[in-house]
Amino acid sequence: MALFDAALAASAAAVEAMLERVLPEDGGPERRLFEAMRYSTLGGGKRLRPFLVLAGAKLFGVPEAQAARAGAAVELVHCYSLVHDDLPAMDDDALRRGRPTCHIQFDEATAILAGDGLLTLAFEVLAEEATHPEPEVRASLVLALAKAAGAHGMVGGQMCDLEAETRTLSLEEIKRLQRMKTGALFAFSCEAGAILGKAAAAERQALLAYAEDLGLAFQIADDLLDAEGTELEVGKRVGKDAGAGKATFVSLLGIENARKEAQRLVQRARSSLAIFGEKGEPLCELARFVIARRA
Amino acid sequence: MALFDAALAASAAAVEAMLERVLPEDGGPERRLFEAMRYSTLGGGKRLRPFLVLAGAKLFGVPEAQAARAGAAVELVHCYSLVHDDLPAMDDDALRRGRPTCHIQFDEATAILAGDGLLTLAFEVLAEEATHPEPEVRASLVLALAKAAGAHGMVGGQMCDLEAETRTLSLEEIKRLQRMKTGALFAFSCEAGAILGKAAAAERQALLAYAEDLGLAFQIADDLLDAEGTELEVGKRVGKDAGAGKATFVSLLGIENARKEAQRLVQRARSSLAIFGEKGEPLCELARFVIARRA
Repeated sequence: MALFDAALAASAAAVEAMLERVLPEDGGPERRLFEAMRYSTLGGGKRLRPFLVLAGAKLFGVPEAQAARAGAAVELVHCYSLVHDDLPAMDDDALRRGRPTCHIQFDEATAILAGDGLLTLAFEVLAEEATHPEPEVRASLVLALAKAAGAHGMVGGQMCDLEAETRTLSLEEIKRLQRMKTGALFAFSCEAGAILGKAAAAERQALLAYAEDLGLAFQIADDLLDAEGTELEVGKRVGKDAGAGKATFVSLLGIENARKEAQRLVQRARSSLAIFGEKGEPLCELARFVIARRA
Repeated sequence: MALFDAALAASAAAVEAMLERVLPEDGGPERRLFEAMRYSTLGGGKRLRPFLVLAGAKLFGVPEAQAARAGAAVELVHCYSLVHDDLPAMDDDALRRGRPTCHIQFDEATAILAGDGLLTLAFEVLAEEATHPEPEVRASLVLALAKAAGAHGMVGGQMCDLEAETRTLSLEEIKRLQRMKTGALFAFSCEAGAILGKAAAAERQALLAYAEDLGLAFQIADDLLDAEGTELEVGKRVGKDAGAGKATFVSLLGIENARKEAQRLVQRARSSLAIFGEKGEPLCELARFVIARRA
């Protein structure tokens, strides 16, 4: 596990450096926007999605500089979604990664624009030649990310999440919601490595199967943290699902069964990686990490 | 001019049909998002930016189906920017194109997500193979749109616009702001045709010079409408710049000089098109239309 921690830290550092490089800075009267974009992206988070990109890309011998660009793109999308999700009209959260959320630190208008800027930047990063010499690969990355992040993916999932405040969802409905809201971006993160490495269809499929189970396990772990963790540990407000009367994996399955389901999913996720042999070990470790984490 | 009106209407119809096709519909619990995206995009607006794409693409013999996709993409970005711009934390507008704005018709959270979904969809549309058989062209379109719409372009311009509420800008500062806020997307619209048609550098440059002057003329005309038009004519709230004490081309130059400057810019925009001979006529007409319009 110490080895895995080191790998996670190394991947996070590579992505941090890339984010530092691609995010705008200085600027004229618009510098407040740049500051808000940097504030919301740099220096925080576990960078799990970029880890998936980098670990996936490594399976196919993709140069790390390319993978770090795709990893930065997916993190930009993740961070934009948090900035907008935290807005008063959405989840109305004041704390994120142990710091004031973007609209608290700056203001609402700046937070809306910062999110817009981050999302747009993600596509700019992917489309630039440095991401891959072959335009076919760059266009594929853009298409896959747009599908994952858009109305049939993450944004659609967020809409379902808002609807979920008005009625109690069934287990199947929650699975669908989470597959859209968090699963789609997990899936893209795994797919990105395969796209960059022009992987065979079977390998791409294996990664997608892994991602699907991993995404659900991650969400169950999140629900468990929301139910059991403290704000200090988790770095954001906890207990809010129960407070909002929202159905979650925990409220529907109970704590014990939710934990078991997460373990079952992680098992299955790991078995999907068999095709990669020993090279799949970092992704196996990540699956274990995802349900063991305390934040 | 009747001929031009017909051309504008034909282009708008082609883009409307494409938007109708690419926008999501039906859906499960997320259908409210789809409705908000369609509401904010379909059935309104002059579709000036798509007209630039289509007219530009025609100069190089690009098939209309390809141009309509790029035109739809730029209109999706334009519409997303209006949805977010109208939010209470931004301009707080209740009326747009003569109808309730998205957050009034739906709610703020849905409007935020609808904007996010529209922006994301724009990149999906460009990256799809139907936009152009060559991935190089698709990647170039994505890159150019991301730059035009992002922190160094439209979103940065919107940030400058917010800053402008706190102090009085000079004419040069206003020009810079408008070049970012509206000019960048105009420039992309003109460039898109050149990218699709793999135009020679000189032709691309001519279109960009045209777009720059056109964008400023458009903005001056907007300021004149804001100062002189009625809400009924314009379809949105007027007099808001003066009300907010904001410097505009009109407040800095006066009505008469602002009108002259717009005419001068339109003249220069038209002269940039000389390289295209008679084929440039629709774009010439558009430049005339932009400062003659009453809404």
